[in-house]
Amino acid sequence: MRLSRYFLPVLKETPSEAQIASHRLMLRAGMIKQATAGIYSWLPLGFKVLRKLENIVHEEQVRAGHVPMLMPTLQSADLWRESGRYDDYGAEMLRITDRHGRDMLYGPTNEELITDIFRAHVGSYKDLPLTLYHIQWKFRDEVRPRFGVMRGREFFMKDGYNFDLTKEDALHAYNRHMVSYLRTYERMGLQAIPMRADSGPIGGDDTHEFLVLAETGESEVFYDSVITDLKLGERVVDYDSRAECEAIVTEWTTPYARTDETHDKATFNAIPEDRRRSSRGIEVGQIFYFGTKYSEPMGATVQGPDGKPVPVHMGSHGIGVSRLVGAIIEASHDEKGIIWPEGVTPFHAGIVNLKQGDSEADAACEALYASLTALGLEPLYDDRDERAGGKFATMDLIGLPWRITVGPRGLKNGVVELTSRRTGESEELPPEAAVEKLAQIYAGHVLRPAF
Amino acid sequence: MRLSRYFLPVLKETPSEAQIASHRLMLRAGMIKQATAGIYSWLPLGFKVLRKLENIVHEEQVRAGHVPMLMPTLQSADLWRESGRYDDYGAEMLRITDRHGRDMLYGPTNEELITDIFRAHVGSYKDLPLTLYHIQWKFRDEVRPRFGVMRGREFFMKDGYNFDLTKEDALHAYNRHMVSYLRTYERMGLQAIPMRADSGPIGGDDTHEFLVLAETGESEVFYDSVITDLKLGERVVDYDSRAECEAIVTEWTTPYARTDETHDKATFNAIPEDRRRSSRGIEVGQIFYFGTKYSEPMGATVQGPDGKPVPVHMGSHGIGVSRLVGAIIEASHDEKGIIWPEGVTPFHAGIVNLKQGDSEADAACEALYASLTALGLEPLYDDRDERAGGKFATMDLIGLPWRITVGPRGLKNGVVELTSRRTGESEELPPEAAVEKLAQIYAGHVLRPAF
Repeated sequence: MRLSRYFLPVLKETPSEAQIASHRLMLRAGMIKQATAGIYSWLPLGFKVLRKLENIVHEEQVRAGHVPMLMPTLQSADLWRESGRYDDYGAEMLRITDRHGRDMLYGPTNEELITDIFRAHVGSYKDLPLTLYHIQWKFRDEVRPRFGVMRGREFFMKDGYNFDLTKEDALHAYNRHMVSYLRTYERMGLQAIPMRADSGPIGGDDTHEFLVLAETGESEVFYDSVITDLKLGERVVDYDSRAECEAIVTEWTTPYARTDETHDKATFNAIPEDRRRSSRGIEVGQIFYFGTKYSEPMGATVQGPDGKPVPVHMGSHGIGVSRLVGAIIEASHDEKGIIWPEGVTPFHAGIVNLKQGDSEADAACEALYASLTALGLEPLYDDRDERAGGKFATMDLIGLPWRITVGPRGLKNGVVELTSRRTGESEELPPEAAVEKLAQIYAGHVLRPAF
Repeated sequence: MRLSRYFLPVLKETPSEAQIASHRLMLRAGMIKQATAGIYSWLPLGFKVLRKLENIVHEEQVRAGHVPMLMPTLQSADLWRESGRYDDYGAEMLRITDRHGRDMLYGPTNEELITDIFRAHVGSYKDLPLTLYHIQWKFRDEVRPRFGVMRGREFFMKDGYNFDLTKEDALHAYNRHMVSYLRTYERMGLQAIPMRADSGPIGGDDTHEFLVLAETGESEVFYDSVITDLKLGERVVDYDSRAECEAIVTEWTTPYARTDETHDKATFNAIPEDRRRSSRGIEVGQIFYFGTKYSEPMGATVQGPDGKPVPVHMGSHGIGVSRLVGAIIEASHDEKGIIWPEGVTPFHAGIVNLKQGDSEADAACEALYASLTALGLEPLYDDRDERAGGKFATMDLIGLPWRITVGPRGLKNGVVELTSRRTGESEELPPEAAVEKLAQIYAGHVLRPAF
């Protein structure tokens, strides 16, 4: 993308309404604009990151064998009356009346709707196991929306639902979700720690939240430092293998890690003192096993092997996709701006032309642009006629992990400058070598246009 | 995808509520399920097609130089009061009150919101031209929703907005949109004819609708048959070239083509009789040039070259993405089911195993599956233990354009059967040759996972 043709309205001033770094930086970097309280437009740069996260979530869910679909944003109130949650949900549910006076609502979650689909179409245990998921906009009428997309009212979320014949099968689904979530967060450059949690309004027996450590997190968290050494890395997981999934879950849930809601001081104090950590965390996902809580009242049964109807064992599993954009920034920024991890960066590298209009510099930038594009990488070329200082400040603010600086002086010596946003370190090298280095850096990443 | 792990709830019976072919077939093929009147869940097969169409729209918009972003589904009523459309819009606008008693609405379109973004961030003519678009769910509270996704209440639509300094620039944007739309529909296997239209509630001087010919269309259309011979084909278009875009627009708008709203009998009757056609059509898109209709009342001005403020010239341009799923089926089906064009098919080929459990047949199917997948193609392998008749009926119903049938008898002679859904013609050939033929068929298509 050429910046002269893009829409990147960066702000020089820090907006006064923003209390936390991610909110400030998303506004300043031209990623979002508030439409009304707690509701945002995603400007091109923000949309691109959101879409990248969405793609990663899809890829990892499909890899785990889960099936994508899409439920609507608006739902009929009838199903929620059937499950008994219509009255329970309170003022956070946005209730709507249509032109015929029918009660509707903007879905805050989809247990009822997916259970309705299941009971209409699935009749036999032979159709199980089944996990369906979607990524869709949801609404929660927060009384005091704040922190930008971290606590908005209209938010983008992945929610998945497993349907299984037995509790054991459903616990395998639970484990499969935990593993796929760990991989999802790792690909986003995040360390998200699973912590035993409270089940809240969804209900259920087993539940873990995934928390990203960040000073601005809403939860207080306590953990054994050994958990932060764990990585899936290049491990290939067979999601059909119960033993494999269970082993990973055991590995991640054995070290102590709890939010203040479930914190147990005695157990925590039994950890060697040098490994005890307390911090704050941002919740970026949660998984639940809730058994037959919805299938029983809503009659979601299958014919079991003995011909008798069995209510299915279910769980629901969510990742806050729009919230993750904020969480990643909270975890990765400095005083100059955002620092995107390579897995989620909206553009793979910035190209800064120090002397726009200089025929040699222009040609070198165009050649770099073409070479990177040919590799499937997406460069952002600042081709505006601006001062170098302004171009650098914009690149630092929007946080592309790599910057190539091209100027007449370097070109005389046959070199350009490749700079890491994270370390600030630069090296001079021939343009082809800079391209080659970026190709290596992104070799392990899925390259796909993220509209 | 293996059918045993997918969720494809095909129906044997024709649902009584469905009056038109696309609605019937989408329900029968397990693509959608009604959630409530005019609101649908997109089951996995339907979602996959919807997402393919979304990707094609994105690809063609980005190719034309338009910039993707995302506006929210809910909007504040205030902006609509500013443009004067809040009261005009009537009962089709879904009005919502939040917990603080603020008036909101589910966006039926986004002229107000995008103009608000523009005026907040763009100040100079140097930032023009600019075309922003998004693809987002919208709501229109139809009094009598019907025909499935063709006339639903919650619908998925691409809407784009151009901002230009002069009328001439805005007309180039209009032409650019027409060309990109023609290419979009062609890639979807559709012939959509641009017809001069009425501007309706959006307002404006210039507008064309794009209509797909189909018996069940809501509009009566009249056209000169020469227009149906036009094709963009492999033409490479430079979207920056006014002359090139204008020439294509002239080519497509010179032959007579009107809906009943703008039909002019005298002009029509002047066409040679053997070229006069009347038919029915489904509207799948519309483009508008409306000048300063929104920019003036909303104060969306830029500083012109002479330093004085100029209200920008705008247009809006829409493609009905969810409606297109129905339109494609209306245009392409037979008594057995859907016939997907190659450009939008949810899976590129079906693999039918005539004798599941036979080790040779199973191995041959697995090998085909692996070979097709390695090419970037997505096969759907019917690996269920079902009768051949049932498997064929399902494949015909869901409409994959190509089917590979694998059975012990053929394998003895080293062959499988490759069948075209459209023509019904089959040929026997070695498995590797079937793969090679499919690779050729899909060679011109963008292969990308469509979650």
